[in-house]
Order: sequence, then C-alpha cells, then structure tokens
Amino acid sequence: MASDSPAKKVLVPIANGTEAIEAVITVDVLRRAGADVTVASVEKQLRVDGYHGVKIVADALISDCSQTVFDLIALPGGIPGAANLKNSEVLESLVKKQAADGKLYAAICASPAVALASWGVLKGLKATGYPPFMEQLASGAIAVESRVQVDGKVVTSRGPGTTMEFAVALVEQLYGKEKADEVSGPLVMRSNHGDEYVITELNSV
Amino acid sequence: MASDSPAKKVLVPIANGTEAIEAVITVDVLRRAGADVTVASVEKQLRVDGYHGVKIVADALISDCSQTVFDLIALPGGIPGAANLKNSEVLESLVKKQAADGKLYAAICASPAVALASWGVLKGLKATGYPPFMEQLASGAIAVESRVQVDGKVVTSRGPGTTMEFAVALVEQLYGKEKADEVSGPLVMRSNHGDEYVITELNSV
Ligand SMILES: [Cu+]
Repeated sequence: MASDSPAKKVLVPIANGTEAIEAVITVDVLRRAGADVTVASVEKQLRVDGYHGVKIVADALISDCSQTVFDLIALPGGIPGAANLKNSEVLESLVKKQAADGKLYAAICASPAVALASWGVLKGLKATGYPPFMEQLASGAIAVESRVQVDGKVVTSRGPGTTMEFAVALVEQLYGKEKADEVSGPLVMRSNHGDEYVITELNSV
Repeated sequence: MASDSPAKKVLVPIANGTEAIEAVITVDVLRRAGADVTVASVEKQLRVDGYHGVKIVADALISDCSQTVFDLIALPGGIPGAANLKNSEVLESLVKKQAADGKLYAAICASPAVALASWGVLKGLKATGYPPFMEQLASGAIAVESRVQVDGKVVTSRGPGTTMEFAVALVEQLYGKEKADEVSGPLVMRSNHGDEYVITELNSV
C-alpha cells in the first residue's frame, strides 16, 4: 500500500461461469500495484464455480458492496459468467453510477458486449471484446479490434490471453505509467519482441 | 474429451501461497484441451489462500491422489506456495515416480528451483524459472533463460506472464501441435508480432 494516500478501491465481481483466468489475473495484478481489491460474488454464496470448474471463494457478496464507492469496477468474462454478472441488479446500478460519476469501469471477453453494452454504458465509446461477440458489441458501442482499448474512463479487452495486458492497463489508469512498469516487470510479460527466443545458458553445459 | 481414448490425467497441486494466476491458467488451459485435471491441495483442507489472497478450492487432497497414475504433474509457483509444495512428501514421491517412469512433469516460477531441483529430478536437464531463483536453480539443473523450456519429459517456465505459453506447451506435449493450436486460438494469445497494434473499426465512427 502507498503510505501517503489511501489505497484505490477496486471491485471485481464474479459469478458461476466466470472465466477464472480473467478474474484471477485482474485481481492479482491490481493487488500487486497496492489496490484494495474486493472480489464480490453476485451469487447467493461466496463460492463460485468458474468456467472449466475452477472454484474461487469471493471476499464478499455483491449486496455487501452496494454502498461502497469504488475507484474502478472491472468485470471478467466467461460464459455464462458474463450473463450472470449482467443479471445482477446491484452490479448494474453500481456500474451505471460509476459511469454517471465519471469513474473508471472495465470489462473483458464476453462482458463488454453482454454486460456493459446491454446496460447502455458504452454508447459512443470505442470498446473491444471477445471475437465472437463483436457483432453484439457493435450494437451498443463503437466496436474496435484491439487487445486493450481505453476510451475515456472505459477499458475493455478480448480474452484470457489479453488479460494481463488489460490488468496492467488498469494499473496505469489508476496509478500511472511508472507503477504499471514496476508491476509488469516481475510478471515476466513479453516485452521486446525477439528477447524470448534468446536462450542464455547460466552455467556450462 | 477425445472420443477414442481416455482423457489424459493431470495433477496440479496447490498450497497456501500458490500464485493463483499460474495455477488457474494451467488448469483451465489443460481442461480446454480435454484433460482430466485434478487440483489437489497439499494443505489439510481443500481451500487454499493463494499469493495475494486469491482463495481457491481444490478438487481433492493430495493424500487422495497418492495411488493415482498421472500423465502429467504440473507445479505452479508463488511464495511460499513453492516451498509448501516442496514440503509435501506425497507430492515429492509422486513426482519422483513420474521421473522414474519417464512421464511428464513440469513447474513454473519458483517451483523448478524450490521443488523440482531440490528433489533432484532436474539433474543434467535444461530448465528455467523465476528470474530471482536462477542461481538456486543452477545448483540442481542446467539453468537456461527461456520463457518455456522443454527437455525430455520436463517442462519449466518463468512466471505469471509466461504461464499461458507454458500451459499451451503442456497441451502440445500431451496431445500434439494441432491440439495446442486449436486451444491457443480462442485464448486470444499474442501470435504474429505487430498484429496486436492493428486496430480495425467494425462500424463507422
Ligand atoms: Cu511467481
């Protein structure tokens, strides 16, 4: 945690059918940056069964979060996780308030189309999403094919393989470029193309 | 699941302090390939508290798996997760049997050095790991700096940001290149350098 300012408060809602890769990378990377991340279940219980059977225990129920002010709300995808998030009225009103207040919100994979666009909070904004959902996304947003898209206070991304870039982009939005670089180094992300093909032997063979 | 052959059996052990990103990507990607993955806790209970507080519920306790024959055992990293895996005698004997039987085993992040090398199952083999652990790794393996290293029946990798490549490499080892390509497409991984910077607008702005 930063010593001079309170930690940024982040909400990551999860549901049965959430893509666990997307939830866990987002939570973990934001916590590495010092954010105070609440993983909140939109189900009746804390434990959710993610897509492909990965079982995660949330920190709170979404109903416990309805009065909290967040600096960022970030929705993971997965099917039917995205639809289950969309059907949470508490989450819908939290995200609509986030949009109305000019605060950050974000989604990845199926959730930009299935949740954000259907709630009407992407109108006139450039957004991306999981490839099979681009047509649905285009009905409620300016659909663009980028790995991570930032437009105003909205950050969207495409799928499991883009989640780490998405999470680092969220760190940059909350804390700036320097913190994003500080966090991404230890993650061993791909950076300079070609570096990953260089093999250095550390001791003699 | 493949219709003509039984699903490949995979063990992914987890512990308190496991890097949840590494565990969840490995499990999820292998399940996408059709593998029968058992997430097994080396703790006394199914629920483990991962590094950065991500809470995962395992499918089984490691003691329930001591008689099972696996096609692959893959260890996630994280601190102190890697040390907690190393201290599991059941896991140690499963991995040593895997090595003796010429079957696949794998580890990422701190686990190649902290678990595999300390068990003596990387001797004379090229392996990689989390950058700060390379010196420790070099005392029990031929330490190399690649994002994913395959040597014989051992696959090793570096950290959260290399886990998806690691998991796809495990799919390739178990099922072949065609299945690996089939699984990696929908993950929206980086492939052709430069593609990710091309933004296509799907509807007129
Ligand atoms: Cu790690």
